[in-house]
Amino acid sequence: MDWKPIKTKQLPLYKQIISYLESRILNGEYPPGSRLPSERQLANQLKVNRSTVKIAFEELQSTGLITSVIGVGRVVNESVYGNHLKRLPNWDKYVKEGHKTNHPLNQQIYQYIRCSNSIINFAIGELSPDLIPMELLCNINPFDMESHLGYENIQGNLALRESISSYMKEYKSIKSTTSSILITSGAHQALHLIIRCLLKSGDSIAIGDPSYDYSMPIFHSAGINTHLLPVGNEGINPEDITTLYKKHRIKMVFIHPNYQDPTGIVLDLEQKKAIINICTKYGIVIVEEDPYSIMGYTSKSNSALKALDSKGVVLYVSSLSNLIASGLRIGWISGPQAVIDLLTDVKQQIDFGQSVIPQLMATKLLNSNQFNEHINNLIKGLEIKRDLTIKLLKRELGEEILFSVPEGGIHLWCKFSHEINELLLFKESIKNGVVFTPGTTLGSKPNHLRFTYSGVNTNQIENGIRRFVEAYKSAKKLS
Amino acid sequence: MDWKPIKTKQLPLYKQIISYLESRILNGEYPPGSRLPSERQLANQLKVNRSTVKIAFEELQSTGLITSVIGVGRVVNESVYGNHLKRLPNWDKYVKEGHKTNHPLNQQIYQYIRCSNSIINFAIGELSPDLIPMELLCNINPFDMESHLGYENIQGNLALRESISSYMKEYKSIKSTTSSILITSGAHQALHLIIRCLLKSGDSIAIGDPSYDYSMPIFHSAGINTHLLPVGNEGINPEDITTLYKKHRIKMVFIHPNYQDPTGIVLDLEQKKAIINICTKYGIVIVEEDPYSIMGYTSKSNSALKALDSKGVVLYVSSLSNLIASGLRIGWISGPQAVIDLLTDVKQQIDFGQSVIPQLMATKLLNSNQFNEHINNLIKGLEIKRDLTIKLLKRELGEEILFSVPEGGIHLWCKFSHEINELLLFKESIKNGVVFTPGTTLGSKPNHLRFTYSGVNTNQIENGIRRFVEAYKSAKKLS
Repeated sequence: MDWKPIKTKQLPLYKQIISYLESRILNGEYPPGSRLPSERQLANQLKVNRSTVKIAFEELQSTGLITSVIGVGRVVNESVYGNHLKRLPNWDKYVKEGHKTNHPLNQQIYQYIRCSNSIINFAIGELSPDLIPMELLCNINPFDMESHLGYENIQGNLALRESISSYMKEYKSIKSTTSSILITSGAHQALHLIIRCLLKSGDSIAIGDPSYDYSMPIFHSAGINTHLLPVGNEGINPEDITTLYKKHRIKMVFIHPNYQDPTGIVLDLEQKKAIINICTKYGIVIVEEDPYSIMGYTSKSNSALKALDSKGVVLYVSSLSNLIASGLRIGWISGPQAVIDLLTDVKQQIDFGQSVIPQLMATKLLNSNQFNEHINNLIKGLEIKRDLTIKLLKRELGEEILFSVPEGGIHLWCKFSHEINELLLFKESIKNGVVFTPGTTLGSKPNHLRFTYSGVNTNQIENGIRRFVEAYKSAKKLS
Repeated sequence: MDWKPIKTKQLPLYKQIISYLESRILNGEYPPGSRLPSERQLANQLKVNRSTVKIAFEELQSTGLITSVIGVGRVVNESVYGNHLKRLPNWDKYVKEGHKTNHPLNQQIYQYIRCSNSIINFAIGELSPDLIPMELLCNINPFDMESHLGYENIQGNLALRESISSYMKEYKSIKSTTSSILITSGAHQALHLIIRCLLKSGDSIAIGDPSYDYSMPIFHSAGINTHLLPVGNEGINPEDITTLYKKHRIKMVFIHPNYQDPTGIVLDLEQKKAIINICTKYGIVIVEEDPYSIMGYTSKSNSALKALDSKGVVLYVSSLSNLIASGLRIGWISGPQAVIDLLTDVKQQIDFGQSVIPQLMATKLLNSNQFNEHINNLIKGLEIKRDLTIKLLKRELGEEILFSVPEGGIHLWCKFSHEINELLLFKESIKNGVVFTPGTTLGSKPNHLRFTYSGVNTNQIENGIRRFVEAYKSAKKLS
């Protein structure tokens, strides 16, 4: 809820709330029969006392606009409009029959981040303001009077695809032509298109355990059976893919080979080659997710699976979100022409392509002679954040928290040396104004959490870790 | 295919083509076993003679990289890499099992438009460069150093939702709060989200006949049964909805009440009220598509269904595509809170929200004190285009082509006074450098076509109609 009552106004808070709810009911935003938020939810959202909400509800109830249903809560009265309206669309039923929603903890995370400016956010994989090249971006004029702002080529602006093709070649040794690249709304949409168009309900696939994919409801929304491929300190055992294939006939494997989210693991070249061989042998499609393989802090170079694949078994997915800014919403998929053609057709059906403006901006930025300098600064900046996060966690929690030091990327995957009450720790952290990703949303093993240090300004990291440590201590006391 | 051989280069064309195809095969863009484009397709795409492509294919075949399969065409050789690779992912199968693709004629339209700058395009519903407020847009700085370019609120930038809420109130008398608005990638994505999240396979709905919805494969991709609701010169007969409900238990009806696409029809107030009453009575959801209800050329005001609905039976879908520029990719849906919450969650899963940059630009434009002037210019500009199109068609074709004159919007729906060979007319038009929307893609009745005059610069309309008339005459001769 975006609206908040204004505390200084002459009209008492509860009256403001009444008139707000009334107008929403009359606008059809809360249709007859629909449920209103609970007193507690509403008090939280409007940042008022629960008693204020209670008074407002009681007044609304006395006018007959809403009613109280045991076991349900406050609902908009159906009979206000006369009995013949009882057959209004049953929105609750519509909504419940729909998609799988996000993990409740993830929903909470998004909600908290949206409601609060002061929360320190170690939960979302994006770049902090001090890593985004704002000066560069501000100096880019996306277009001029000659530009065309009609529908862009659905596959993506050609100049942008050229820049991305060059970028992949220069930074990742991936050879491609522009025709085999589809621009998407971040890597997210690329994955969504792959799942929706190349798999069908009942198909089996493998995802990493732990992995970011583990947290994504889109697989189950599409009726896909996900099988877990262990990701450990040694990376992935390629033979596990064979086993999953023989047992479940998996059709795809989703792999994040470099600085994996969340473990930070890099598969070694032998593992990568073996994975490609096995998938080629069994006809398993590899979906390679590569959001930040170029963000290594050492001089080691990390090959993409795609760079090792000449037979078109890899669908390569990446984005500019962690390279420039996630607000651009520029990602892409590169793969066999037949797949790109199909996904382009579907993208036309579902959203008619990406906005032309961020595409023009991204093109200019990728082609700027300051791009390479930006990348160097970005990597240095991430290393500083990693070092600081690690130093503070070690200093404050010592052996209570364990991790492998990631050599690149944006995540720190931590394990507690003992059992923790995850939900309690999460709640205490939120109370303290800091948020992280609970481990159970990312994998099957308990007592883990992910700190995504990329999203926090460096001068806020100490504050953030301090808040977390306090939450940790109070959760420990309470449990 | 974006690449073209360069005719002046010392290397012969066929050798350039060989090395291009070789690299695409080795990149995995044409994996072993996959089909290459036909000689004719490739010659068309690369703009070379078919004999040149033939030579290139023969050379590639002699190296063993590709092979010729009777009834299939040229395919990449599977055995090049050894027999054990025969179990590579069968992309053809993947692709065929996927979504319903666009109508072949529509696919051709998109392809032609993409390949040719000189084609005059009466087929796509967007604004021509002379209607897009480029000067206004060029003067907008989307952001400054203080802006946040991380992930935007998935529901959409709050300031943009405020501007849209005010816009709906001022221009369409629709009352709403920002919380009940979700920003989408044009109206297209709003419809996609509704279909995917609120309906399930096997559900029945009603769409107009003719209507733009008729051309959209997303209904059938989702397994929805579409039933036709006749749209005639008198609009829609509300009782037809009752009939469809009793016969098929339709769950939703997709209605475009003002300046309908393609007929240009406006439902009168009595029809609108009756539709709302019937849908309220039977619990049928109304999806109101309203891309251009404010673009009336007369002083008549046209109510939105949403403005007449206080019970939340209407999901209102609109966009800035025909108001500012389709390249922005800004649309929205306004409806009951429970629906908006669900669709927001799903949007987060599938694309993580719209790019922040066009959202900031759209906000500034909607709030600009020149916005109203732009709208007035837009309406005047559209009226001029309509008048010119009608005048020329009447002058050139007289009674052979019939239409009702639309009082607003962007389309002219024409009927021939006699039988036409639609495919032939379409092909001849393409040859002549003009494209329109064939009537059978939009409705069940033959001998119609849609001219979308909004997308053509006024100084090109005469040229476009001339090209069309020539195509029409030559198609008549040939059939």
